[in-house]
Amino acid sequence: MKVAVFRKAHFNAAHRLHQPLWTDEKNKEVFGLCNNPHFHGHNYELIVKVVGEQDPQTSMVVDLGWLKNLIKVEIEDRFDHKNLNIEVPEFDNLIPSAENICIVIWQILRAKLDPKFALQVRLYETPRNYVEFPLEAE
Amino acid sequence: MKVAVFRKAHFNAAHRLHQPLWTDEKNKEVFGLCNNPHFHGHNYELIVKVVGEQDPQTSMVVDLGWLKNLIKVEIEDRFDHKNLNIEVPEFDNLIPSAENICIVIWQILRAKLDPKFALQVRLYETPRNYVEFPLEAE
Amino acid sequence: MKVAVFRKAHFNAAHRLHQPLWTDEKNKEVFGLCNNPHFHGHNYELIVKVVGEQDPQTSMVVDLGWLKNLIKVEIEDRFDHKNLNIEVPEFDNLIPSAENICIVIWQILRAKLDPKFALQVRLYETPRNYVEFPLEAE
Amino acid sequence: MKVAVFRKAHFNAAHRLHQPLWTDEKNKEVFGLCNNPHFHGHNYELIVKVVGEQDPQTSMVVDLGWLKNLIKVEIEDRFDHKNLNIEVPEFDNLIPSAENICIVIWQILRAKLDPKFALQVRLYETPRNYVEFPLEAE
Amino acid sequence: MKVAVFRKAHFNAAHRLHQPLWTDEKNKEVFGLCNNPHFHGHNYELIVKVVGEQDPQTSMVVDLGWLKNLIKVEIEDRFDHKNLNIEVPEFDNLIPSAENICIVIWQILRAKLDPKFALQVRLYETPRNYVEFPLEAE
Amino acid sequence: MKVAVFRKAHFNAAHRLHQPLWTDEKNKEVFGLCNNPHFHGHNYELIVKVVGEQDPQTSMVVDLGWLKNLIKVEIEDRFDHKNLNIEVPEFDNLIPSAENICIVIWQILRAKLDPKFALQVRLYETPRNYVEFPLEAE
Repeated sequence: MKVAVFRKAHFNAAHRLHQPLWTDEKNKEVFGLCNNPHFHGHNYELIVKVVGEQDPQTSMVVDLGWLKNLIKVEIEDRFDHKNLNIEVPEFDNLIPSAENICIVIWQILRAKLDPKFALQVRLYETPRNYVEFPLEAE
Repeated sequence: MKVAVFRKAHFNAAHRLHQPLWTDEKNKEVFGLCNNPHFHGHNYELIVKVVGEQDPQTSMVVDLGWLKNLIKVEIEDRFDHKNLNIEVPEFDNLIPSAENICIVIWQILRAKLDPKFALQVRLYETPRNYVEFPLEAE
Repeated sequence: MKVAVFRKAHFNAAHRLHQPLWTDEKNKEVFGLCNNPHFHGHNYELIVKVVGEQDPQTSMVVDLGWLKNLIKVEIEDRFDHKNLNIEVPEFDNLIPSAENICIVIWQILRAKLDPKFALQVRLYETPRNYVEFPLEAE
Repeated sequence: MKVAVFRKAHFNAAHRLHQPLWTDEKNKEVFGLCNNPHFHGHNYELIVKVVGEQDPQTSMVVDLGWLKNLIKVEIEDRFDHKNLNIEVPEFDNLIPSAENICIVIWQILRAKLDPKFALQVRLYETPRNYVEFPLEAE
Repeated sequence: MKVAVFRKAHFNAAHRLHQPLWTDEKNKEVFGLCNNPHFHGHNYELIVKVVGEQDPQTSMVVDLGWLKNLIKVEIEDRFDHKNLNIEVPEFDNLIPSAENICIVIWQILRAKLDPKFALQVRLYETPRNYVEFPLEAE
Repeated sequence: MKVAVFRKAHFNAAHRLHQPLWTDEKNKEVFGLCNNPHFHGHNYELIVKVVGEQDPQTSMVVDLGWLKNLIKVEIEDRFDHKNLNIEVPEFDNLIPSAENICIVIWQILRAKLDPKFALQVRLYETPRNYVEFPLEAE
């Protein structure tokens, strides 16, 4: 029987939305305050959903302590208190929008998770703005 | 690649559950305190989910500032600090139950949103009671 | 040794801010949307703080089950799903502003609470607007 | 038109994760602090999702007061302030992991709910750890 | 200039309210479900308030990382996933009511904190029941 | 009769803790990740408490709409989506620690508020770390 388990985590980071193919005027027009060249920041909240069968002996889908640590090592240690544009290589050529940060986190964790589990990531940029990828855990 | 984006909003309104086809006794029996003829009210919390492809240049599904403003103009400005039964025409012949308010909000926003996006609405009547429509974003 | 204990409760009600000594125009100018003659409403959240010595045998200041029930009987049963202006006699000649609702709740509970305890009430009209009375528990 | 309605509830309980087929050492190694023979506990938060057609006259999927009471009688009265391992018979031979508690709650409520409704249960063991069963309401 | 700084923490524990001087009947009558001999449990939330002057060079009252670690070592490591009645010596002869747990935590931290700082502790037993000691930071 | 009224607001900003009198090594040792020269950021939550007499005609201490706008103009418009170190002049020679941001906000609002009101500011840097100034509203 498949069950979904969820683990929340968080990191605090600076970022800026900027499309280098555009003029500064167009960037400011499209991204508004988020284009600030001096950066701004957020307390990002992350919810990782893992879907799978229960282990017949532990009754757990995954050990949530293990999942907590995976998120710490792979995401928090690399993203927390960082400037996403400058210090996280995945965003060297990728705008650190909430959508892209969420996809990048899914890709990083997907590569570390046993393929028998499905995975979905939700990322809160603020308590009122958040994104989810993919549409169904996969 | 499709991503889901979410925006929270809120409005404070008065309402009353009342089925005009029924006697007052039956209304009171079925709807209980919610049938109070003098109305009662709630801080409604609204979560709007929009699903679509990322724009290749902005990396965003929709501009969340645009979505925030759409919800303000179409929902908050019309519902906030209103008596839903008396002042919101959609409820002239429709009981303003959480289910119906949620469907009405979906219909209003659906008509304003590009068909390439799918849409789902969640409405909290209280922190413990909430509804969602439709079952999948459409 | 004195300890403060807190109990949260909630009620959903309709209200309207209206000063009968003023013209309709002045009411609308001062109270804005809150003056809507058809009412609007809120999920009020209430925090009751009781300060006192611990009972030497139970180690409790007051039995929180007793306090929960006191709030239910004296406040929730009288305010929940009500129109404060029309159905709660304390507001017959008193504007049901957050400030006044908070003071009225304190007065009601103060009359029921042993004088050896000090009392303070906090009332959330929305998650972003709230009031507290008195300044120190008394 | 199908709508999903949700009701939150909660109970406080003690539990322990222990696989009787294993040695104490293995239990401690796998379950860590959660294996504590003296038990520990949680404020469990429960979200019950019911999916169905609106009643044509009430416009409601189910009466949320009825659902609140069903959860109280079937779940809260049996689980609240209990030791799940010792006092809840469903866990006589079943580890009270979050996954299993969630499945047991779904089974109990499923048996009481009209088959025309679909049902899903989410259980928060802590604000950061939670589970959901089944993957789609059924 | 004095500033107050706050740090939240949490631990999950089992407990039971029982006054050994009383009969079982009286214990059950006074403490109700909380007297369950098999224990029940909570996710305790803790807020530690430290009041003091800012350090002239760091501008901080205390390093919140240091405070986080102090709470971890002195409180979380000793209370988390424990049975308070059986495994935390401070409650060998003290009922682990919210009031007493809060006072014990204040005493433990007070002994470790420089006397130039004032200290206050708030303890949530559930989101609706909480206590604070002492009345003013000291 | 004096009542306290509270208004919550928020802003998202980047910052860095750095004492220019110190070497880079000492800065890193004391401030840790918060010293990151590329900045990091937070969703700051702000609670403004205003204490005063009720207006005899409106029954309000201050118009919360006016207070909301004051906070918007004086704080949010100047701090939101900004780099506090670079773009907010108050921090030209002041470390933007939570303590100092809180004091600066109090000073800005204090200068705009009628002296008959007392004022206190609470600032959340994260949901787990927050500060308050002054100790009592003044």
